[in-house]
Amino acid sequence: MAKILICYYSRSGNTKRMAYLIQQGVIEEGVEVDTKNVKDVKLEELKDYDGFIFGSPTYYGGPAAPIKDLLDRSIKFHGKLQDRVGGAFSSSANVGGGNETTVMAILQSLLIHGMVVCGDSSGDHYGPVAIDRPDKRSEKNCIRYGRRVAKLTRQLRD
Amino acid sequence: MAKILICYYSRSGNTKRMAYLIQQGVIEEGVEVDTKNVKDVKLEELKDYDGFIFGSPTYYGGPAAPIKDLLDRSIKFHGKLQDRVGGAFSSSANVGGGNETTVMAILQSLLIHGMVVCGDSSGDHYGPVAIDRPDKRSEKNCIRYGRRVAKLTRQLRD
Amino acid sequence: MAKILICYYSRSGNTKRMAYLIQQGVIEEGVEVDTKNVKDVKLEELKDYDGFIFGSPTYYGGPAAPIKDLLDRSIKFHGKLQDRVGGAFSSSANVGGGNETTVMAILQSLLIHGMVVCGDSSGDHYGPVAIDRPDKRSEKNCIRYGRRVAKLTRQLRD
Amino acid sequence: MAKILICYYSRSGNTKRMAYLIQQGVIEEGVEVDTKNVKDVKLEELKDYDGFIFGSPTYYGGPAAPIKDLLDRSIKFHGKLQDRVGGAFSSSANVGGGNETTVMAILQSLLIHGMVVCGDSSGDHYGPVAIDRPDKRSEKNCIRYGRRVAKLTRQLRD
Repeated sequence: MAKILICYYSRSGNTKRMAYLIQQGVIEEGVEVDTKNVKDVKLEELKDYDGFIFGSPTYYGGPAAPIKDLLDRSIKFHGKLQDRVGGAFSSSANVGGGNETTVMAILQSLLIHGMVVCGDSSGDHYGPVAIDRPDKRSEKNCIRYGRRVAKLTRQLRD
Repeated sequence: MAKILICYYSRSGNTKRMAYLIQQGVIEEGVEVDTKNVKDVKLEELKDYDGFIFGSPTYYGGPAAPIKDLLDRSIKFHGKLQDRVGGAFSSSANVGGGNETTVMAILQSLLIHGMVVCGDSSGDHYGPVAIDRPDKRSEKNCIRYGRRVAKLTRQLRD
Repeated sequence: MAKILICYYSRSGNTKRMAYLIQQGVIEEGVEVDTKNVKDVKLEELKDYDGFIFGSPTYYGGPAAPIKDLLDRSIKFHGKLQDRVGGAFSSSANVGGGNETTVMAILQSLLIHGMVVCGDSSGDHYGPVAIDRPDKRSEKNCIRYGRRVAKLTRQLRD
Repeated sequence: MAKILICYYSRSGNTKRMAYLIQQGVIEEGVEVDTKNVKDVKLEELKDYDGFIFGSPTYYGGPAAPIKDLLDRSIKFHGKLQDRVGGAFSSSANVGGGNETTVMAILQSLLIHGMVVCGDSSGDHYGPVAIDRPDKRSEKNCIRYGRRVAKLTRQLRD
């Protein structure tokens, strides 16, 4: 059965909140999910998941170094994660503060792994973003994104 | 049965060559495909395809205006192309000349439509690029990409 | 004396509003400025300006085709605009809707011309963005950005 | 007198080679320069430089985590590096392998600091890239970029 890893880095708690909202969407779609702080993710685990959703606060327009470090080390499984499903989300302090480029930077890493990613025509297009604490708009988009990625993972990997 | 549109803009013929190499890959995967110059694509046709692969020479780091114009006008079907499959390719004059940002710009447009896109762990990661006339490396990557996008389209849309 | 062109495409009027706010900042800094709708910009004029600020609504994550078309045709002056100053701004319907990638796409085009661009540590970092009609935050950031680009143009080109 | 820091991360030696080629260009322009491995850069030093050129191998389409970590920690001086000069370079294993997105990711970080960056109309447009060991083309572009960033730093900061 398909299984998704939601892996986040969070200091203020905003990205963590987004992670659990996305988790709610994945569960609603009936897909198994583990949600973990990046510091609790063992490199070896990566090969066990069918889908991956990485979340980070927006740090200088990209993912926080601990997320990037895990992605860098994931080279150990380069080629083995091909055709799995990927996704990304980010919280930031400002509109125009780099959240889109953070989401795109993570998606680029996942495309380099050969993963499959999806956008959304009506939510946050590239992946969920929140300005500070997720508001109603962001909550809805996180749940919606969780459902979309979960559904895609089920279609491709079950 | 799933059907893919390869839509290109080309002046020197390099992007057109890439289009037909990608077409070859799509056909090898047994998926129906139309390959058209952007000037021959009617807006209404877009709703008839399950997958879309857009190609452009690298013009100032992004797709040529005629490709962007079609993408802009595709707003007529906004929301209706959700969950279809997307892809992108680009030819350019130089390494480091903007081909990756061109491919990513097209993929971003397709993600905003809610499409599903795939990277590649061993070819050109974001989508095929060629420096000038496609060489052996680029030929192989184009065919490989055609197969990958076709397979994904079949999985999701047949 | 240094002179800046602000060139915008606008349908709803939001991007045009941003253009005139940015113009206000340029004027406050004592730099000459022309603000024009892209349809009124003659290609030949480009060589007469020391700085360029391009603005577009966010269309599928990038600049509208008429802006891209002008950038594409500016190849006529490729190499001649080296070391001039560039800038970008965008209005969009949604947070996370592609405004940052639109600003970055324009900046990439200007970098390919060899131009000099500046970010901002406290306003909209890559360039001003507005969600719908520019609000107070966006107004302030537009004026601030106009001043920053004008000052840089003066420093480098006067 | 203006002073530039070239800060690199390198494992194979290719990015380090690029760093010293860029250094050569900076010196040719008569600007003072320190070239350091990222592990030898103390956070406090950042405030002492007028220009910064960061280089990294292309790791999953972005800068290596140690470079990103330094950029993340540079928040300590957020606002204080405004109007200084920035630049970026990257080495990678493949064409289309993410080198442009790596250079752009670093430039985005520097724009968020409010820095001023320049492209190049005839070399590698966003910043120097090398495929494997820098070849003649790449050597020339590195030296050229060093000169360009040095000249800009002198103009703005001397």
